[in-house]
Amino acid sequence: MSASSVEPACTGHDPSRPVFLMHRGGKLEVVPRLALRDRADLSLAYSPGVAEVSLAIAAEPALVDTYTGRANTVAVVSDGTAVLGLGDVGPRAAMPVMEGKALLFKHFAGVDAVPICLDTTDVEEIVDTVARMAPTFGGVNLEDISAPRCFEVERRLQERLDVPVFHDDQHGTAIVTLAGLVNAAQVVGKDLAGLRVVVSGAGAAGVAVAAILRRAGVLDVVVCDSRGVVEPGRADLPDHKRRLAATTNPRALAGSLADALVGADVYVGVSGGTVPEEAVAAMAEDAIVFALANPDPEVAPEVAARHAAVVGTGRSDYPNQINNVLAFPGVFRGALDVRARRVTEGMKLAAARAIADVVEHPSAGEVVPSVFDERVAPAVAAAVAAAARREGVARR
Amino acid sequence: MSASSVEPACTGHDPSRPVFLMHRGGKLEVVPRLALRDRADLSLAYSPGVAEVSLAIAAEPALVDTYTGRANTVAVVSDGTAVLGLGDVGPRAAMPVMEGKALLFKHFAGVDAVPICLDTTDVEEIVDTVARMAPTFGGVNLEDISAPRCFEVERRLQERLDVPVFHDDQHGTAIVTLAGLVNAAQVVGKDLAGLRVVVSGAGAAGVAVAAILRRAGVLDVVVCDSRGVVEPGRADLPDHKRRLAATTNPRALAGSLADALVGADVYVGVSGGTVPEEAVAAMAEDAIVFALANPDPEVAPEVAARHAAVVGTGRSDYPNQINNVLAFPGVFRGALDVRARRVTEGMKLAAARAIADVVEHPSAGEVVPSVFDERVAPAVAAAVAAAARREGVARR
Repeated sequence: MSASSVEPACTGHDPSRPVFLMHRGGKLEVVPRLALRDRADLSLAYSPGVAEVSLAIAAEPALVDTYTGRANTVAVVSDGTAVLGLGDVGPRAAMPVMEGKALLFKHFAGVDAVPICLDTTDVEEIVDTVARMAPTFGGVNLEDISAPRCFEVERRLQERLDVPVFHDDQHGTAIVTLAGLVNAAQVVGKDLAGLRVVVSGAGAAGVAVAAILRRAGVLDVVVCDSRGVVEPGRADLPDHKRRLAATTNPRALAGSLADALVGADVYVGVSGGTVPEEAVAAMAEDAIVFALANPDPEVAPEVAARHAAVVGTGRSDYPNQINNVLAFPGVFRGALDVRARRVTEGMKLAAARAIADVVEHPSAGEVVPSVFDERVAPAVAAAVAAAARREGVARR
Repeated sequence: MSASSVEPACTGHDPSRPVFLMHRGGKLEVVPRLALRDRADLSLAYSPGVAEVSLAIAAEPALVDTYTGRANTVAVVSDGTAVLGLGDVGPRAAMPVMEGKALLFKHFAGVDAVPICLDTTDVEEIVDTVARMAPTFGGVNLEDISAPRCFEVERRLQERLDVPVFHDDQHGTAIVTLAGLVNAAQVVGKDLAGLRVVVSGAGAAGVAVAAILRRAGVLDVVVCDSRGVVEPGRADLPDHKRRLAATTNPRALAGSLADALVGADVYVGVSGGTVPEEAVAAMAEDAIVFALANPDPEVAPEVAARHAAVVGTGRSDYPNQINNVLAFPGVFRGALDVRARRVTEGMKLAAARAIADVVEHPSAGEVVPSVFDERVAPAVAAAVAAAARREGVARR
């Protein structure tokens, strides 16, 4: 969800409007990397020459990553159940979003990405289907799959595949949020470890944000859902929230989001809910507010700015756009470059640190780089590749 | 198999040889069809603009074919069990072949094709996997899946999908063989219906060649496998050959391939076996020999030419190259252009006729066009589209 930056307004299907004209025929094409000028070219690129390449791979299967596009190709997989902020619109309606993602993969990181939208929402079927395509793809970017199924899909797919499986709604959001928070903490002169952080939203993004912040050393993370603080005393918690309750909330808070925000240093909204101005006003001095819901931030940035020292949103029309596109192209570029077997927590932390470091002089108005800053993806890629090597998941 | 044209010689994996250099990194890339210059572009191509397109498709799912690349995108699916003439080399070794196919799709017909190689050889699993990708692809080209599983995979997939499913090893070969035979019969002044045809090979290609020839009006088709004529008296026939025995061989022949060839007008080899010169010599006056096995034709063309009036092979270094690339790009182009629900027998016949008609003055040395003749794919596409409309499978 944080990957969007929105002027709202949906005025229905009008083929003459620029947005529909731009999407007509789709946003991608699959093109040859080499010229086919004559029979000599044909006999190398296709039969009979290709038979030699096939035989070489048959003898040594890892050569598929040398002599085909596999090692640079990522499947962008969705079942269409949690598309942008639109919800369960189905796999066909997810297609333009996945094409957009693929376009960003190529534009920012040179990764060849193929949208794969699936006509099933069954975890087993999604996992089986994607796992069977293992010979084809060097990585899997899961996208817009609703919680809690997304957790199991990712975990089980990664168990079966020896290439990176990355659910962007979780980890892309988490990485960029941490990047912004690292710089924001520096701007307000607070230590990351000592921050009191309240995360609003206990879905895919909220779970991942809480996890990466704790790994980054933040000791006091409290997660809220629409009923308030996620804590062990609640009887209404599904499995993934019960795990969250067990690993967050060290001061054993209970109550509403507003209760949790009293004295908090940081608010991270990935919920789509709202936060009243009074609740922001009740936060600690020099508060940090990342209101990432799209199209409508949980609290209007102008309102938040009356009380907070640093304000970020998912929108392109305000400063500090916390957008996944800062993360996923570079994460996959780095992982593919070293043929990583997976994306470890260390690689995610390294990505966040690299994004933060691109901002040379962090200020209240610039805690993350622009989404068009061309230094970001290479910096993230280098950091992720180095981390993969350090952590022993790189193949080269 | 007839899609190759071969100088044999496999000298192993040597990264410095041109064929390996050419394949390094693969032969395809996935590129944006539009520029991403600034935030305005990003907000149209991706979020927030894309949300409007998603909502339009959610409201009217058929719009996925207007606002994404689906209607121009074909999955090239293989399980790697019958790759070229190499056999069961596995899905990774199939990848360079499928990339080559995708390259030809784009080069000759502007079709965006995506290789999908599957880590399963189970019919049920192949069908399920591909069927679940229905929101993504406007057509499915099955490739290099071994017989008899290929028949069931194709049939069951087509039952589940309302887009064309086309097993190229069957129908591509059959279409181009018929095209060549139409012109060859004209060259030797024989009537198609009256030809005695012997097909050597009862696998994917043989079954399809026999079927299309019968539909084209050839009354006397005899199919042989490695044990001789496929006929109801044989106890060793699997299902698909029993069906073949029931629908071919009107003169109730039994015996060897050589027996069947005595007095035959046409030999079509899709077997990889061999035919002795005496057997060719025993054929009728003005015989037609299409020896399509690759890399080694069932009978050397120089030898066949001593006895036959027209000789064709799968090779690029002899006249009359009977190659699938004359068929599949145009077949899919035409089917996609009218959003055909399937590829009917009538569309295949129309494709064969269109290929034959590109040759303005058929002669013994030219019964099919060059694979580089740029008129072929558009002519095939137009004929296939018109046939789809006639047969009521076109959506527009």
